[in-house]
Amino acid sequence: MEAVVHRYIAALNAADLDAIAALYAADATVEDPVGSPVHRGRDAIRAFYAASLACRLDVTLEGPVRAAANEAAFAFCVRLHWQGQDMEIRPIDVFRFNEAGEIASMRAIFGPANMEKTSG
Amino acid sequence: MEAVVHRYIAALNAADLDAIAALYAADATVEDPVGSPVHRGRDAIRAFYAASLACRLDVTLEGPVRAAANEAAFAFCVRLHWQGQDMEIRPIDVFRFNEAGEIASMRAIFGPANMEKTSG
Repeated sequence: MEAVVHRYIAALNAADLDAIAALYAADATVEDPVGSPVHRGRDAIRAFYAASLACRLDVTLEGPVRAAANEAAFAFCVRLHWQGQDMEIRPIDVFRFNEAGEIASMRAIFGPANMEKTSG
Repeated sequence: MEAVVHRYIAALNAADLDAIAALYAADATVEDPVGSPVHRGRDAIRAFYAASLACRLDVTLEGPVRAAANEAAFAFCVRLHWQGQDMEIRPIDVFRFNEAGEIASMRAIFGPANMEKTSG
């Protein structure tokens, strides 16, 4: 699970949509942030990341990946460019894995207090 | 939610069992770590923390509390004394809150890779 998280971070930084989508199960769900509409299935997830990658993400893991049973959690910082502004967002993501080692669900926990304009 | 997390950390460091229990809903659940048996209800939760506090916890938050909708997540380091050894454990906890602002569920994500003997 830790290796998948590292591949996920690397794929985000490489803006590699295929690599990101390949980490997810075909019927996976993504809720990013928690409380927003859930993206279901690899096509919807791919469309969600295509929009995210347009913001030129620069992702840095903060601290070790935590893993227990079939779940992993990790804190990170995303620097991105959105609507003419540079921003930093600091989520904690929780992945749940299926038996094939694919991400079955992703939930991103962050809110306004975790978002900061850094220019613009 | 962020204030509750800070009260929780302070109560752990003060070994204040009443203060910890008071943060939880009467019918709350605690799964610590994820994959282990769930403690249900304030009495069971209190007993779980009574055992934990016997390990003389020294808890430090790592990075900001993340909060979205009715959930908060936070990374932290726990230094503790267990079976004659000093240890460090680095979990990420996820709290879900009820409408009264009480913790309805707590899930702690950490595994062997997040535990380190520091003496003994």
